[in-house]
Amino acid sequence: MAAIPLLTVREAIQRAFIEDLGDAGDITSDACIPEAATATAVIAPRKNGVLAGLSVAAEAFLTIDPKLDVQPLAADTDNAQARVAVLSVSGSARSILMGERVALNFLSHMSGIATATAALVAETAGSKARIACTRKTTPGLRAFEKYAVRCGGGSNHRFGLYDAVMIKDNHIAAAGDIAKAIDGARAKVGHTVSIEVEVDTIDQLVEALAAKPDIVLLDNMSTDDLRQAVDITNGAAILEASGNVTVETVAAIAATGVDVISSGWITHSAPVLDLGLDFK
Amino acid sequence: MAAIPLLTVREAIQRAFIEDLGDAGDITSDACIPEAATATAVIAPRKNGVLAGLSVAAEAFLTIDPKLDVQPLAADTDNAQARVAVLSVSGSARSILMGERVALNFLSHMSGIATATAALVAETAGSKARIACTRKTTPGLRAFEKYAVRCGGGSNHRFGLYDAVMIKDNHIAAAGDIAKAIDGARAKVGHTVSIEVEVDTIDQLVEALAAKPDIVLLDNMSTDDLRQAVDITNGAAILEASGNVTVETVAAIAATGVDVISSGWITHSAPVLDLGLDFK
Amino acid sequence: MAAIPLLTVREAIQRAFIEDLGDAGDITSDACIPEAATATAVIAPRKNGVLAGLSVAAEAFLTIDPKLDVQPLAADTDNAQARVAVLSVSGSARSILMGERVALNFLSHMSGIATATAALVAETAGSKARIACTRKTTPGLRAFEKYAVRCGGGSNHRFGLYDAVMIKDNHIAAAGDIAKAIDGARAKVGHTVSIEVEVDTIDQLVEALAAKPDIVLLDNMSTDDLRQAVDITNGAAILEASGNVTVETVAAIAATGVDVISSGWITHSAPVLDLGLDFK
Amino acid sequence: MAAIPLLTVREAIQRAFIEDLGDAGDITSDACIPEAATATAVIAPRKNGVLAGLSVAAEAFLTIDPKLDVQPLAADTDNAQARVAVLSVSGSARSILMGERVALNFLSHMSGIATATAALVAETAGSKARIACTRKTTPGLRAFEKYAVRCGGGSNHRFGLYDAVMIKDNHIAAAGDIAKAIDGARAKVGHTVSIEVEVDTIDQLVEALAAKPDIVLLDNMSTDDLRQAVDITNGAAILEASGNVTVETVAAIAATGVDVISSGWITHSAPVLDLGLDFK
Amino acid sequence: MAAIPLLTVREAIQRAFIEDLGDAGDITSDACIPEAATATAVIAPRKNGVLAGLSVAAEAFLTIDPKLDVQPLAADTDNAQARVAVLSVSGSARSILMGERVALNFLSHMSGIATATAALVAETAGSKARIACTRKTTPGLRAFEKYAVRCGGGSNHRFGLYDAVMIKDNHIAAAGDIAKAIDGARAKVGHTVSIEVEVDTIDQLVEALAAKPDIVLLDNMSTDDLRQAVDITNGAAILEASGNVTVETVAAIAATGVDVISSGWITHSAPVLDLGLDFK
Amino acid sequence: MAAIPLLTVREAIQRAFIEDLGDAGDITSDACIPEAATATAVIAPRKNGVLAGLSVAAEAFLTIDPKLDVQPLAADTDNAQARVAVLSVSGSARSILMGERVALNFLSHMSGIATATAALVAETAGSKARIACTRKTTPGLRAFEKYAVRCGGGSNHRFGLYDAVMIKDNHIAAAGDIAKAIDGARAKVGHTVSIEVEVDTIDQLVEALAAKPDIVLLDNMSTDDLRQAVDITNGAAILEASGNVTVETVAAIAATGVDVISSGWITHSAPVLDLGLDFK
Repeated sequence: MAAIPLLTVREAIQRAFIEDLGDAGDITSDACIPEAATATAVIAPRKNGVLAGLSVAAEAFLTIDPKLDVQPLAADTDNAQARVAVLSVSGSARSILMGERVALNFLSHMSGIATATAALVAETAGSKARIACTRKTTPGLRAFEKYAVRCGGGSNHRFGLYDAVMIKDNHIAAAGDIAKAIDGARAKVGHTVSIEVEVDTIDQLVEALAAKPDIVLLDNMSTDDLRQAVDITNGAAILEASGNVTVETVAAIAATGVDVISSGWITHSAPVLDLGLDFK
Repeated sequence: MAAIPLLTVREAIQRAFIEDLGDAGDITSDACIPEAATATAVIAPRKNGVLAGLSVAAEAFLTIDPKLDVQPLAADTDNAQARVAVLSVSGSARSILMGERVALNFLSHMSGIATATAALVAETAGSKARIACTRKTTPGLRAFEKYAVRCGGGSNHRFGLYDAVMIKDNHIAAAGDIAKAIDGARAKVGHTVSIEVEVDTIDQLVEALAAKPDIVLLDNMSTDDLRQAVDITNGAAILEASGNVTVETVAAIAATGVDVISSGWITHSAPVLDLGLDFK
Repeated sequence: MAAIPLLTVREAIQRAFIEDLGDAGDITSDACIPEAATATAVIAPRKNGVLAGLSVAAEAFLTIDPKLDVQPLAADTDNAQARVAVLSVSGSARSILMGERVALNFLSHMSGIATATAALVAETAGSKARIACTRKTTPGLRAFEKYAVRCGGGSNHRFGLYDAVMIKDNHIAAAGDIAKAIDGARAKVGHTVSIEVEVDTIDQLVEALAAKPDIVLLDNMSTDDLRQAVDITNGAAILEASGNVTVETVAAIAATGVDVISSGWITHSAPVLDLGLDFK
Repeated sequence: MAAIPLLTVREAIQRAFIEDLGDAGDITSDACIPEAATATAVIAPRKNGVLAGLSVAAEAFLTIDPKLDVQPLAADTDNAQARVAVLSVSGSARSILMGERVALNFLSHMSGIATATAALVAETAGSKARIACTRKTTPGLRAFEKYAVRCGGGSNHRFGLYDAVMIKDNHIAAAGDIAKAIDGARAKVGHTVSIEVEVDTIDQLVEALAAKPDIVLLDNMSTDDLRQAVDITNGAAILEASGNVTVETVAAIAATGVDVISSGWITHSAPVLDLGLDFK
Repeated sequence: MAAIPLLTVREAIQRAFIEDLGDAGDITSDACIPEAATATAVIAPRKNGVLAGLSVAAEAFLTIDPKLDVQPLAADTDNAQARVAVLSVSGSARSILMGERVALNFLSHMSGIATATAALVAETAGSKARIACTRKTTPGLRAFEKYAVRCGGGSNHRFGLYDAVMIKDNHIAAAGDIAKAIDGARAKVGHTVSIEVEVDTIDQLVEALAAKPDIVLLDNMSTDDLRQAVDITNGAAILEASGNVTVETVAAIAATGVDVISSGWITHSAPVLDLGLDFK
Repeated sequence: MAAIPLLTVREAIQRAFIEDLGDAGDITSDACIPEAATATAVIAPRKNGVLAGLSVAAEAFLTIDPKLDVQPLAADTDNAQARVAVLSVSGSARSILMGERVALNFLSHMSGIATATAALVAETAGSKARIACTRKTTPGLRAFEKYAVRCGGGSNHRFGLYDAVMIKDNHIAAAGDIAKAIDGARAKVGHTVSIEVEVDTIDQLVEALAAKPDIVLLDNMSTDDLRQAVDITNGAAILEASGNVTVETVAAIAATGVDVISSGWITHSAPVLDLGLDFK
């Protein structure tokens, strides 16, 4: 699975440490713990969940102290069990304590997203529908959250405004009609760029299909309408459903035969997976 | 209420736009919407909630286009009502669409935290307990999340490892005992720095109080123990309760007479407040 | 046409000025020209060419001195005529001289690329082939060069390794065969991502088409082979030709019926369009 | 020969990778090539040329993956032969593919400049004239291009507005006359700063020499005038010729006896040296 | 003693080298010294003084060249003797010369502050008063200067506007009176934040103590008044004296019984400790 | 006089504010002073001195709040009088207090350097000697300190290792002898770069002059030797004296007839000019 580029990881970790250490550093450990003291600690989840971000957590410790011995005991995408260690770190006790919170904040946040994604994915087993994320991400962490979605078995929608065309009502209004919007975009963007158009009704879908978009987003449609959309489209475009996607509803949506189900919730509102660090 | 420093706001917004615009920008709007087209749009919540981040959202639009006319229609800390606009923006249609997602991602995330905080604060009405956040924040956004907690009526715990001493079991073990840890810290940190010590039992509390910490963190104690802790301490230190703090439990914890109740949940797992932008 | 994101423009301009001004600034003008002296200057090409980067040049002057009055007298994509001014700037003489070289360096470089692109585009008039650029760009300036290609009437290929799949011989070898490579990629990347596969022979093309790629890159094929490829493919995939693309050869390549012709030369080796600044 | 400062190299490489990898990374290799796959590849030129930037290319690979074994097989300033490898890299196949384009983009661009410079230098063999570059460089890459000029046997003119005085017509007009401009500058800049004045005619040269500049730039003069300038000056100042410098004209200019011949073309319009990476 | 966070150190060192190396690097050593030449050099003070910044100096050399062998021969807080080496560095002669000035500039500046601090601390021996620094620091170097103060035996006041409340006359005027200012601050800032109020007279002190500040700053009071302040306060708040603090006056101020004596001079005007690097 | 490049000023100011405001900002003013409160304040020196940095101070206030009305009442290079205002600022009281310390820290530090420089310059009146600074500057502030030296009537030596050659004993030893070092450097650096060589004795001076350096640094020579050096050199090179330069010794050194006297003290150890901000 595609990793987050290392430079992106390092930059985010540095920001997080600047935030946590300020100009004075870890004044508690510096005051209470001898510089030469060493320790071993492990990180373990408090509840079951899907892991994402182990290498980010490891990199966080190594950013503070390259001499720490950091050993992953599990891998991203694993179903981690409560109280079973997923990473161990040995070396300077001060360094471990200094790195702890940043490492856990990344790992908990990312594993929370992976776990939420996996919950939706589990409900769609047996269907062809993929669970995709959106651009509703936490500012500054999109690469991390998109990666966590992949760890949870989900799939990534476009990363930003720049890598796919998404035509919505305002664009259609400005262009005149759906066909003009799609044709105009096709003429202006590069040949590697996919064009998606959002529709709310079956009528709009029919109108859209005539202009041959690569993807149609079916927004907030009933499962009956989704099923009809699948029939009408008959493979001429990738169909994506969005709106009111929850653990309770997703199986029924998947059963309609759509190709993709997108959810903002998995990135913007997934609770963290609670993980803690314990000294041995 | 203390604002987030403007340079911090601007830097985070720039990161968010770099993330969303990449090198190609908003290829959809550039293809479909005339450069000269203008529009007016409003942002409104889809559900009731407490606002935090309106000036961040406004700054996001102005970062994209300083010529946009951005007008807040409400203020941070307000209880916003579903479907009642809280911010309006007029000007270039392309600029509004380019700024929309970043503005909403900040505002939704921050308002979600404010709303979660306010829910805990509401439960503690009538007590003297303040609701405080922790260092369990989303990497890179601590200033924003700490601010959102203040908007929700909460109070900020230390911002990082650098601005208060927090003595935990590992520090005590390394120092020898609680008194040595506190005395050692007192000797080494500046006179403006508060010293907090974490205890799990009433016995530890008694031991800690002898060394005159500024604050004692009572971790995962029963409400009976918390009450006893309040009696024993009798104002000699600020008492902070943590562990198992939920909307259901917080009133009982507050009723014990502790000064501060700290919650990681309000920053790391609060669902967003759903807000949307609509063109008029 | 999609503009370069403003933050990207500003960051590159700042880098360029740091490079040109160092810590001491424009020591010549500071020594010789009174602080209050004002002037008006115009930028004009020394030869005919296609403009790209006028707003970058304007932003460069404004970065040095927001009080300068900068007026574009032409627009990007225009065919500029030798000695006809394309931008005027009035205000502090020191500011104009300080901004001159950076403004010209961007404008000359970008217009050189636009002019080279337009030369290829002109040769393909009447065909359906679009001229596309590659990732063979000058480090740090890809957004600027991709934009300049668009100004010259060209089209952008993927911006980086991140926004489209391009399967080459090494990927095929590692995956086992073309079908496995394409299927594997399709399973792993998001539904908005296009998949392109590079082939050298008609046999490979046939093999590739069976796996339904979105795009096939026909590398270094003869025009006879290109024509055959167009026949065989019959619209089942977008066909892109590359290799030995020059002003002399491009018309014949376009005449084969391929959809896209990609050229590294337009970004990595186009000579600048010579532009100069003259005081009035 | 003076190297580019390492921090400058690293910063430019990081920018280039951010540009090429985005937030998703190399999605093709991540999808098609096993994480554990290893390979060896070599970089070789497709044509003969002068090398510049081998250590930049090496650093690019190491930035992606410090475990790669990168071995230069040649050195900057070498005349590289077509199809003879100049650098080998072994290790993770994914890492090699991820680093390939950035490494090649630097090396091709810099070697193109070195090759163009060397072509001018070769024509001036036997004369005392040095070939110098100008400030007409690609924004953000001046240190790299100045270095490449040195690799090609050329010499560097000032790096920016900050490290030498260059008095042109506007400065003279503002100061009153050439003598006032030179004297004013001499009084204001530090004692390590050289003062150069640009003249267009022999009369101006005579006037300039009276004010004892360190260097005189003879702009766009005929070779007859250049010869006369050399006679008149007789060693009292360094003489630099500029304007209409090409591979065809440079020998005649050098034969006039000037000390320095400066060319913008070698940095702003040199075509790249075509280099490629091949897996073994 | 708490160290400066490593990321902060690295960022400041990089800035310093960018400043010293520019785009061309160490042109003297590159021209005169063979790339393969090696050497050993030591850094030693020219006068006695207290060391601060040895690890910063070491990091500076390693930033330039990780292969240098850098050995501290003393430790921060040590009383270094004139002409006794405190750090040795071996390896590439070019690298040593390139790192020399930046390493010395940090070490001399920081050791100058430590030495000045130690001079004040020595005068207060036997008293309970701690010597504290202020926010009157050199822009961009606060973390380094605060650390140097600690090395000299001093103590840190707040690091910025963000980590303690300091109520001065303008705040009191705006709030209404001292009690309102203190109560208002107490209600708004977190429970870990100390509140200090500045008073000029004994009357103000009495008024302030009624509102229970954590710390009172006694500004520019006579030693008689300071003594009286100590009597009146009787341990109810930490007392800090400021104003007219010199090596001559500090003992008398300490003898009044105040807890803290703060000095801007130790950070803003301490002369450097003269240190030099000598090749062996 | 040459100004510090604006981008350099802005970057340093931002760093200073990040340092002073942290993530929480000015918690005192935010708690005590109403957001709408306005005020007018002036900055005035507490002692006489030479001003440097007024525009930096002004920019600091405007960075915090572009709506502040900042009016300089004096100019850099002015001899400011104690208690006479040099800058006024009106607008939001919170903004003024937030900007105060950063503005004063720059202005006090820079004016301290200008004042120290002016003290040396005053002692050399009537001689032709210029007072120059060195590379012994505070890390990160070289541009500011070099500018402050100019404000004090001094002159700038090279800005870094990159803009002039300075041959010292190690370079001579590595090159073989002085002539080889100078000739080698002349062959390798550009024609705008000056070459300076450091000598300790008259014999070395004679040896150096034979190789025609642009500048000779006479290090730690007696005034008798300096006089002899001036005689021997007779204008063939610029002569610079260094070592033991103080307000007491500088007049005698200047009287020897040297061209330049360089001092590290003016940048590394000048005490600040005490300036304060007072509300009206």
